[in-house]
Amino acid sequence: MRPKNGKEINQPPLRVCIVTTTQLTLIQIDNYGPWTVTPEPRREMDLQTLQSHLFADIAQFLGSRGGYVFSTRYDNLIAVTNGIDRHAHALLQETIGNRYPITISLGVGSATTPFAALEEATAQIQAAGSAQDEDRTEVLAGEFNSTSDSGVRIAHFDVIDATEKYTDQLNAFDSFIQIQRTYLSLLEYLRDEHEALAFFVGGDNVVAVCPELTSTAYEGAIDHVARDVSVALQVGVGRGTTAHEAGYAAKHALEDCRYSGTAIEFGGSTTVGDDD
Amino acid sequence: MRPKNGKEINQPPLRVCIVTTTQLTLIQIDNYGPWTVTPEPRREMDLQTLQSHLFADIAQFLGSRGGYVFSTRYDNLIAVTNGIDRHAHALLQETIGNRYPITISLGVGSATTPFAALEEATAQIQAAGSAQDEDRTEVLAGEFNSTSDSGVRIAHFDVIDATEKYTDQLNAFDSFIQIQRTYLSLLEYLRDEHEALAFFVGGDNVVAVCPELTSTAYEGAIDHVARDVSVALQVGVGRGTTAHEAGYAAKHALEDCRYSGTAIEFGGSTTVGDDD
Amino acid sequence: MRPKNGKEINQPPLRVCIVTTTQLTLIQIDNYGPWTVTPEPRREMDLQTLQSHLFADIAQFLGSRGGYVFSTRYDNLIAVTNGIDRHAHALLQETIGNRYPITISLGVGSATTPFAALEEATAQIQAAGSAQDEDRTEVLAGEFNSTSDSGVRIAHFDVIDATEKYTDQLNAFDSFIQIQRTYLSLLEYLRDEHEALAFFVGGDNVVAVCPELTSTAYEGAIDHVARDVSVALQVGVGRGTTAHEAGYAAKHALEDCRYSGTAIEFGGSTTVGDDD
Amino acid sequence: MRPKNGKEINQPPLRVCIVTTTQLTLIQIDNYGPWTVTPEPRREMDLQTLQSHLFADIAQFLGSRGGYVFSTRYDNLIAVTNGIDRHAHALLQETIGNRYPITISLGVGSATTPFAALEEATAQIQAAGSAQDEDRTEVLAGEFNSTSDSGVRIAHFDVIDATEKYTDQLNAFDSFIQIQRTYLSLLEYLRDEHEALAFFVGGDNVVAVCPELTSTAYEGAIDHVARDVSVALQVGVGRGTTAHEAGYAAKHALEDCRYSGTAIEFGGSTTVGDDD
Repeated sequence: MRPKNGKEINQPPLRVCIVTTTQLTLIQIDNYGPWTVTPEPRREMDLQTLQSHLFADIAQFLGSRGGYVFSTRYDNLIAVTNGIDRHAHALLQETIGNRYPITISLGVGSATTPFAALEEATAQIQAAGSAQDEDRTEVLAGEFNSTSDSGVRIAHFDVIDATEKYTDQLNAFDSFIQIQRTYLSLLEYLRDEHEALAFFVGGDNVVAVCPELTSTAYEGAIDHVARDVSVALQVGVGRGTTAHEAGYAAKHALEDCRYSGTAIEFGGSTTVGDDD
Repeated sequence: MRPKNGKEINQPPLRVCIVTTTQLTLIQIDNYGPWTVTPEPRREMDLQTLQSHLFADIAQFLGSRGGYVFSTRYDNLIAVTNGIDRHAHALLQETIGNRYPITISLGVGSATTPFAALEEATAQIQAAGSAQDEDRTEVLAGEFNSTSDSGVRIAHFDVIDATEKYTDQLNAFDSFIQIQRTYLSLLEYLRDEHEALAFFVGGDNVVAVCPELTSTAYEGAIDHVARDVSVALQVGVGRGTTAHEAGYAAKHALEDCRYSGTAIEFGGSTTVGDDD
Repeated sequence: MRPKNGKEINQPPLRVCIVTTTQLTLIQIDNYGPWTVTPEPRREMDLQTLQSHLFADIAQFLGSRGGYVFSTRYDNLIAVTNGIDRHAHALLQETIGNRYPITISLGVGSATTPFAALEEATAQIQAAGSAQDEDRTEVLAGEFNSTSDSGVRIAHFDVIDATEKYTDQLNAFDSFIQIQRTYLSLLEYLRDEHEALAFFVGGDNVVAVCPELTSTAYEGAIDHVARDVSVALQVGVGRGTTAHEAGYAAKHALEDCRYSGTAIEFGGSTTVGDDD
Repeated sequence: MRPKNGKEINQPPLRVCIVTTTQLTLIQIDNYGPWTVTPEPRREMDLQTLQSHLFADIAQFLGSRGGYVFSTRYDNLIAVTNGIDRHAHALLQETIGNRYPITISLGVGSATTPFAALEEATAQIQAAGSAQDEDRTEVLAGEFNSTSDSGVRIAHFDVIDATEKYTDQLNAFDSFIQIQRTYLSLLEYLRDEHEALAFFVGGDNVVAVCPELTSTAYEGAIDHVARDVSVALQVGVGRGTTAHEAGYAAKHALEDCRYSGTAIEFGGSTTVGDDD
């Protein structure tokens, strides 16, 4: 699946001193389910449009501040918000409330693993009431991470030769199934083994928010998926003080994979990662 | 998982004479992968925003003409387009080309099963060139179904008590995993057993485009998912001359499930289904 | 201002038999003023965003059905809707109600002059209550024009050499003032003399919905503006069964002005106009 | 027109020490005119949609950073950008370039009057080439104002009893003409007398970016419009370190006018204005 030479893994020589703290925000539409069928079921394409516009608005708002947001279940979005403070969160909540027929609640959590951060973020919202409690609206709860020297790790995976092997060969649904299987396999492995959170972002791309992991760990993930669903992945890994910085470094690292035929590349804006 | 009484399944008495013909359109962004990294990788949140706006625009265009579209892989969208003709498809292609930095190709196919229709739609695009062939732009290929008496079947599934069992109990990521597993299980079953195409549409909802199926077939799908991933589904099934008509009837039927505690309900705008 | 030769005016030889009937729709946001300050004034940029998205959604919906809509006051939009029926209007109202925190009322009128059609459309909404009556929501009133052989006239004006004379010479505000003065001068003249409705559509472009007018009438308008505000206009005039058809012919006719240096050109899809 | 009692004008007692510096950004679509007709004229409603989405995107981007933007000519937008730095401007330019088929140039200027600031901003772009020079793309030129103690003045005007007098009485076009006349009268007066820039923002609202002006100056503007076009205006004036702060104070001051029947009210977040 991957070239078996030494070049494939450009591992940063020193990682022990790196502190990775991920600040995650859970964004939940308030009382959405009941609203979609009151007084009558609303047109499905209107709901889909609303959800997509909501996601796009949040993506622009957080994205231009260095954050990442993932559509996840559409009524529950997960965002990486390192460096984005309470004031900005409140402003996001206000602009959505001003322009949509629905409102959003925001729960925030920080931890050394993304999974633990999300547990905290979820707990903040759940403590305020049920997702279908009509009196629970526009919650803004949780602690904001103020340490500016912490880092985020983003791993950007894609399928090697996806267009040639799948998109141009299979029908569009079977290509899609192949991607979905691959995604679920990777998602569960990263969550169970490393408390990382992986998100499908379109095409054949999966973006994972990770704690600090060695290249052996990424190799393990790629091997697992190869064994589990027979799909060959490559991954670029980036580090930064924001999701965008880390993700952008990851994209460049993934480009390195494409050009050099390696399966794992590390990028990153810090000194440690610069050798990549 | 479901009440074991006769009421749970309201099966239409006569189905033999029904002709279900699904017209599907595959919408593929032309040469998208290379564009996303030329000359440098583009900001991930800009790509996500573009994809979401594109989907929303297509959802409004097709949705207001009775169609349904599903985001699928975002760069390859699948639409149910019964009743939507070549002129409208060309107009959609034109407006996207006028307002986006990318263009789209459209392949159209019709068949008695959605899967066969999609194979035809995909073949139409693949015949014109690779998804990453930069000279292959704005393909509009395939035959449009002109029979106005054919019908579409939409099945709208959701998870029984999803908010209480998952959203308010688990952390947001584990809820999401549970939904993803459920979706993949249902997706593969429906494709393999019935050539139906299932799409996750947010929350705990899956919309499936189906051929004509008996209630026993839907029961089989629900039982499969229960055994496979231990999640209890309910489903409303609707029939109509367009995706919207069928889907709207399915939504009402699903409401019937919620109120009466049944697992499968049939709705629909035709005489045959009216007894539900 | 214009070349004084015979070529400048390509006048259709026969106009007596042409029936021009314009169907106009007034789109009014329900109770918008009070909403913008309840419970507190809302952020100005959120209001601007909402208004622009609303206009864009309506432009896509009507535009893809052959209609034109103009932003006018943003809370009161005016649309040319020949060929767009009650069902489509109801669907537009529904999708806005599903996706925005506000709702819209629609009044429809038809007449041989656009001004008379708008008076009828306005009367339909005013009869249902005040724009700030909170019980008056989602009005859909008026008669839809069912004659398919009627025509729409669109005149597309722009300023000769606007970029060279204004945009690249004056500061951006003085360019803007020049355009505004030109627009107001043209607007009042066309309304008072010909019951035509003119709308600024960006840049240096004004689109006017007109009754059947001779080239002498258009010449009069251009001369008036030249005397009144010393700005030289050119105009392309088109005819069609929908606003888009007429407007598209007008755009091509305006291109003819640009290339041939004439001030008035007639285009149009009918036999009568084909000699242009 | 206004109650002739002392309460009508709540004038700040001390203004001499206030420094008002407005940072303005001119946003110009690069080579837009030629693009709209290449290779053929593009559908008018697609152009309108693109322009509205572009404006809305810029409004959200700048608005959430305290800025204001005005649609002006749509292809030339004017923004108040105090407190928004070069990095943010570059990011705005990047996201538009990533998601639209067109690009934008940005010129920035600062001065004690808005008009002078705009002249500077315009000069920055004009120096780089013509608006229709196809080689002049994505200019980002000008100096960014780094003094944080400078202030912005926003005056928010509206028409007294506009709904009762116009919207519910006149047809929609004559209401619109009345607003346009009022706007142009106010626009020219404020520019000529005070180097202030006024923008129509929908409904019956005009937002003016002003230098430091006395209540007598605002009274002069209102009197001019009353004489010129027989329309009665009221105005709330606000001060802040950003356009949003100043504009929000202006909105509250305008609410004070509505409740107390006064024609001019001053608000503002600074000590000097707090007595209002």
